[in-house]
Amino acid sequence: MRMRLLSVSVLAVLAAAPAVHAGEGMWVPQQLPEIAGPLEAAGLKLSPQQLADLTGDPMGAVVALGGCTASFVSPQGLVVTNHHCAYGAIQLNSTAQKNLIQDGFNAPTRAAEVSAGPNARVFVLDQITDVTDQARAAIAAAGDDALARTRALEDFEKALVADCEAEAGFRCRLYSFAGGNTYRLFKNLEIRDVRLAYAPPGSVGKYGGDIDNWMWPRHTGDFAFYRAYVGKDGKPAAYAADNVPYAPKRWLKLADQPLGEGDFVMVAGYPGSTNRYALAAEFDHTAQVVYPSIASHYRNLIALVETAGEADPDIAVKYASNMAGWNNTSKNYTGQLEGFKRIDAAGQKHAEEAAVLAWLKGQGKHGADAIAAHARLLELLEQNKATRERDLALAMFNNTAMLNAATRLYRLSIERERPDAERESGYQERDLPALEGAMKQLERRYVPAMDRQLQAYWLNAYLELPAGQRVPAVDAWLGGNDAAAVQRALDRLADTGLGDTAARLKWMQADRAAFEASDDPAIQYAVAVMPTLLELERERKTRAGHNLAARPVYLQALADYKKSHGRFVYPDANLSLRITFGNVTGYVPRDGVAYTPFTTLEGVVAKDTGEDPFDSPKALLQAVAAKRHGGLEDPRLGSVPVNFLADLDITGGNSGSPVLDAHGRLVGLAFDGNWESVSSNWVFDPAMTRMISVDQRYMRWIMQEVYPAPQLLREMGVGAP
Amino acid sequence: MRMRLLSVSVLAVLAAAPAVHAGEGMWVPQQLPEIAGPLEAAGLKLSPQQLADLTGDPMGAVVALGGCTASFVSPQGLVVTNHHCAYGAIQLNSTAQKNLIQDGFNAPTRAAEVSAGPNARVFVLDQITDVTDQARAAIAAAGDDALARTRALEDFEKALVADCEAEAGFRCRLYSFAGGNTYRLFKNLEIRDVRLAYAPPGSVGKYGGDIDNWMWPRHTGDFAFYRAYVGKDGKPAAYAADNVPYAPKRWLKLADQPLGEGDFVMVAGYPGSTNRYALAAEFDHTAQVVYPSIASHYRNLIALVETAGEADPDIAVKYASNMAGWNNTSKNYTGQLEGFKRIDAAGQKHAEEAAVLAWLKGQGKHGADAIAAHARLLELLEQNKATRERDLALAMFNNTAMLNAATRLYRLSIERERPDAERESGYQERDLPALEGAMKQLERRYVPAMDRQLQAYWLNAYLELPAGQRVPAVDAWLGGNDAAAVQRALDRLADTGLGDTAARLKWMQADRAAFEASDDPAIQYAVAVMPTLLELERERKTRAGHNLAARPVYLQALADYKKSHGRFVYPDANLSLRITFGNVTGYVPRDGVAYTPFTTLEGVVAKDTGEDPFDSPKALLQAVAAKRHGGLEDPRLGSVPVNFLADLDITGGNSGSPVLDAHGRLVGLAFDGNWESVSSNWVFDPAMTRMISVDQRYMRWIMQEVYPAPQLLREMGVGAP
Repeated sequence: MRMRLLSVSVLAVLAAAPAVHAGEGMWVPQQLPEIAGPLEAAGLKLSPQQLADLTGDPMGAVVALGGCTASFVSPQGLVVTNHHCAYGAIQLNSTAQKNLIQDGFNAPTRAAEVSAGPNARVFVLDQITDVTDQARAAIAAAGDDALARTRALEDFEKALVADCEAEAGFRCRLYSFAGGNTYRLFKNLEIRDVRLAYAPPGSVGKYGGDIDNWMWPRHTGDFAFYRAYVGKDGKPAAYAADNVPYAPKRWLKLADQPLGEGDFVMVAGYPGSTNRYALAAEFDHTAQVVYPSIASHYRNLIALVETAGEADPDIAVKYASNMAGWNNTSKNYTGQLEGFKRIDAAGQKHAEEAAVLAWLKGQGKHGADAIAAHARLLELLEQNKATRERDLALAMFNNTAMLNAATRLYRLSIERERPDAERESGYQERDLPALEGAMKQLERRYVPAMDRQLQAYWLNAYLELPAGQRVPAVDAWLGGNDAAAVQRALDRLADTGLGDTAARLKWMQADRAAFEASDDPAIQYAVAVMPTLLELERERKTRAGHNLAARPVYLQALADYKKSHGRFVYPDANLSLRITFGNVTGYVPRDGVAYTPFTTLEGVVAKDTGEDPFDSPKALLQAVAAKRHGGLEDPRLGSVPVNFLADLDITGGNSGSPVLDAHGRLVGLAFDGNWESVSSNWVFDPAMTRMISVDQRYMRWIMQEVYPAPQLLREMGVGAP
Repeated sequence: MRMRLLSVSVLAVLAAAPAVHAGEGMWVPQQLPEIAGPLEAAGLKLSPQQLADLTGDPMGAVVALGGCTASFVSPQGLVVTNHHCAYGAIQLNSTAQKNLIQDGFNAPTRAAEVSAGPNARVFVLDQITDVTDQARAAIAAAGDDALARTRALEDFEKALVADCEAEAGFRCRLYSFAGGNTYRLFKNLEIRDVRLAYAPPGSVGKYGGDIDNWMWPRHTGDFAFYRAYVGKDGKPAAYAADNVPYAPKRWLKLADQPLGEGDFVMVAGYPGSTNRYALAAEFDHTAQVVYPSIASHYRNLIALVETAGEADPDIAVKYASNMAGWNNTSKNYTGQLEGFKRIDAAGQKHAEEAAVLAWLKGQGKHGADAIAAHARLLELLEQNKATRERDLALAMFNNTAMLNAATRLYRLSIERERPDAERESGYQERDLPALEGAMKQLERRYVPAMDRQLQAYWLNAYLELPAGQRVPAVDAWLGGNDAAAVQRALDRLADTGLGDTAARLKWMQADRAAFEASDDPAIQYAVAVMPTLLELERERKTRAGHNLAARPVYLQALADYKKSHGRFVYPDANLSLRITFGNVTGYVPRDGVAYTPFTTLEGVVAKDTGEDPFDSPKALLQAVAAKRHGGLEDPRLGSVPVNFLADLDITGGNSGSPVLDAHGRLVGLAFDGNWESVSSNWVFDPAMTRMISVDQRYMRWIMQEVYPAPQLLREMGVGAP
């Protein structure tokens, strides 16, 4: 996958701390003083203190887009990120006459910049506050009742966020680190008027397409420019023609030294999720059962949609996004399973855990507590396993388009009966714009005949569950357990009116009684199963409450073990700001083959076939043939570098992250990991895990020689005056 | 392809001389003194004089197998070559109970060695005689008649060979170099009792199978051992149980210094055919018309046989060999066309030819003669082009199983009417054992229903010829030019009795009158078209006679041009003994990727899937896991080397060639070229052309740790005493 954040997988495992290998480590900013030694050893020339100032230079320039990372590169609010992070905005502004994905976009003036859409955001970090003590006190006050603990944490979080967001223009979020050992509140300025300033043609920005996705050697110009706008008062505002560019306090300068093999590089960004501190048994369950099972289901869904899509092009178009997600996930899982085998991840996990448990035996009461916590986590895993198939089948059935709409809309009506602060997260006033957006978007991702096939697939999966896993409410609604009952249920559901967008939006305003009186078959299903869904949610929250007691104890002990062995510990990725550092370096993917760390312009041309996704612009081919390097040639390569490898530790969410050199200057943008790195989600493999970045020299070369944007180069201080 | 000789392609272009790049050059032994400088510069420690002694040490140890190369490695006639060169012998000795391809073969004693079959040969070079003056005199005596020139050369060759072979136990062959600038007679001792001594299991010897064929990185243990036997009198004899091992004058010693990157290596062997001195127009015709056309036809044939083979397993089995050939050729042509594009072969050819012609204009009468010769060759090419489609369709139709048998048997009866010395080559007494073998072998490569489909394919191709290319005799035989006529012809041919092996062998003895009176429909076809075939043969020989006058003149001028520019010149490969030298080195196959020159044991295991062709023996997997390197580890690799790359210049026929180090010791066996090298058939690409060899240390490791043959290791002087 490219390193944009994927939607969170159905089953998640929690998080918190291993050894420092070359490049390993998604460090929280608070750890920068602690890792000053390794940073300097790797080559950092800035002082770690300067780096630790998150609103200073350079860190203050790093921003989040929600799913991607980006950075300011001018005092006029110019933002650089990946082409694939700006893809939605590029698509949104495309018309039948003017295909920006294909042709690119280059606003000659500010006035020509176009809105990236009402949901586009630039989040500028304002403050991080450690709230561990308060959070723990809130949980402790709930006592021994596990469900109460979970609810106490939820209530604490809602109150904290509401308080933080009381100041207009800010968006706040609570992050839990290491299973709950630390809690931090992030307060971000939320810029809501984001505009597209520049995107290269797709034949540069997504050169290589799905074929090269995750692959090295790579030749993708995966960059694009946004500009952040605010109201005339300097405060965040919705899009308005007369808004003005935001003036950031900090912005990055482009590197003035050529990057080379072995050089220090670091990345700041918002990685989504890793599972490096999972128990060995949790790892085994995932590798042996969860990944193979989900990959197999997704392959089945892909086959269903492919067949249907051949007969009906409307299906092919509307389910393209689902298909991309299923493909990406099953390919990712396959890659992870390959990697687990390559590095014997199971052997490593079990050997380390055995060493930790042995060490804990000699650590008195703390050790005994941690061993007990470990045992408790294993029990929770067993509970999870017992209903895994049911939870998957039910969640996926309820996630088909019409049932997803019905259950969410009905749930909203239930939550609305309570004061906003007490509502379930996802149904508070602050969440409603996103929910409305989802209800609207459905019209572009739904075809009744296909939805019916997907309902049938998951209903049949439900029917295959062992009797003990069946859900009485679903059984009753189904009214049988054979193919005929499935057909009757599908026939009923086919009459739903929720396929109509106006109807869905109208139901967003309806009260609970209206749902419960409705004769819409999808809504009737939602009403019938909701008590069960709420009960299952209570059970999950109860388990989460147990987890909340046990996980931090064990993960703290694990961290102590590692520290006692001289190893630095960082928490698993959790969407919060992280720093990773290392060096530019290739790797040996297999016996007899070495991947060198830079690709060049000639490699772009060598891959060119003239057909998508290898159809470079003519201007590019001509410039390469004429060796017009525009002063951006690296003499060590004899050409302009395009993409480069480094041994940094990134994951989905890091897309668009600025890559900084030893002096904090911008040398590139992270946009992907290599195929061999995906298994590092669970067990970091220092030999094979590599970040793939687009070199800023290629970005400038495209903006000079291929699809010229002298106005932006000047703005970044590198163009002709 | 692996570097065994392929059957000669339907259309051949002639031969003779470019520049010395790193590794380029298939040098004739007579050139060794001339290239002494480059040899020493590359690292040779032996004196070039020692190397030039073809019956001395080490060159006297190199032998030909007919299609492959090999070498003596003990004073008791032990011969090492590639597993794929011994494949026929291994297959021949396999039974339903004992599958030697799968299990390997390891004769514990000499008595247990098994015959490699009646057609297996070891040719030991006895003498090379330059007969240029005599050959040219014979041609000159024929005067201006082109057909007479060709026939004069044929008569000269037959008389020369007959005279040479008058000494029992020898096989002789005349080779033409550089289009006829030099003629040399090779006299070889012909050892006819060849026995299989050792072959590793197929999961070592052909590890990677067709998937890895032509590919790097490679992990194939492509080696096997024969032993040469002679009669008790020391003279060549047919297989007899009491024959004795042949005592060669020379045999190679295994290297006692570890081979490493950059080291000098050289290869002696029998490369089959290259086209490096073809005219630019000949190259264009091949690249633009011949290769695409043949590759397309072969893909069609492959599709036909695949479909038929799915319905009838007998077809799948019996046409497997044809399919392998068609696949290999179309894959090879595709690879060549890719390579031509990569290196702009057409541009290089035209630029060089333009430079040569420009230079010739300043060279007085010699220059003018060469320019005229060049023009004459272009005319001959045009003649060739004019009938290319007809020649292909007719040759391929006549080459289908039954028609091939009919035309060759009838032709034999015609030739038999003349004294042996006057018969067409291929039909002399010395050729009859091979002809009989072909007639017998047909029964394993023929299914009537499939033969009919192939006849139909080529008859339809014939019908699509422009009217001007049609052949009256075939038209008359066909009796129409529509689908119905084709069906009638196929129905007639289906009644042939030549599908029966006994019948074919009986017809081998029949006289011409018997054929002409026969009512067998295939024989009737042969009788009907034979006058035309003989006429077309006369036309080809006439063109060959013109070629014989023009080609040597132009190629000599080309050589003079190159020499005048300080470049060494070697003739195109022609199946005769050649020496090539260079260094162990990897290459850069594409931007961002480097191929390193050695693979290792760990790479074998990393590729293992447990399924053919990646199903290593358990003993191998265990030995690697236990790091049992048996003293054969290279400290630079931390493991035992398996295969290695070097920049030498080899082609089909070089398979099994000994790779010698700077001291003339055996460091490995050449067995393949890389994918990128196939286009070097026409234009040598020094950057990408690499020879792939099996390292002798891997061979020894297999014979020590996996499939032990201590008796052979001792015999080669490297085993425990």
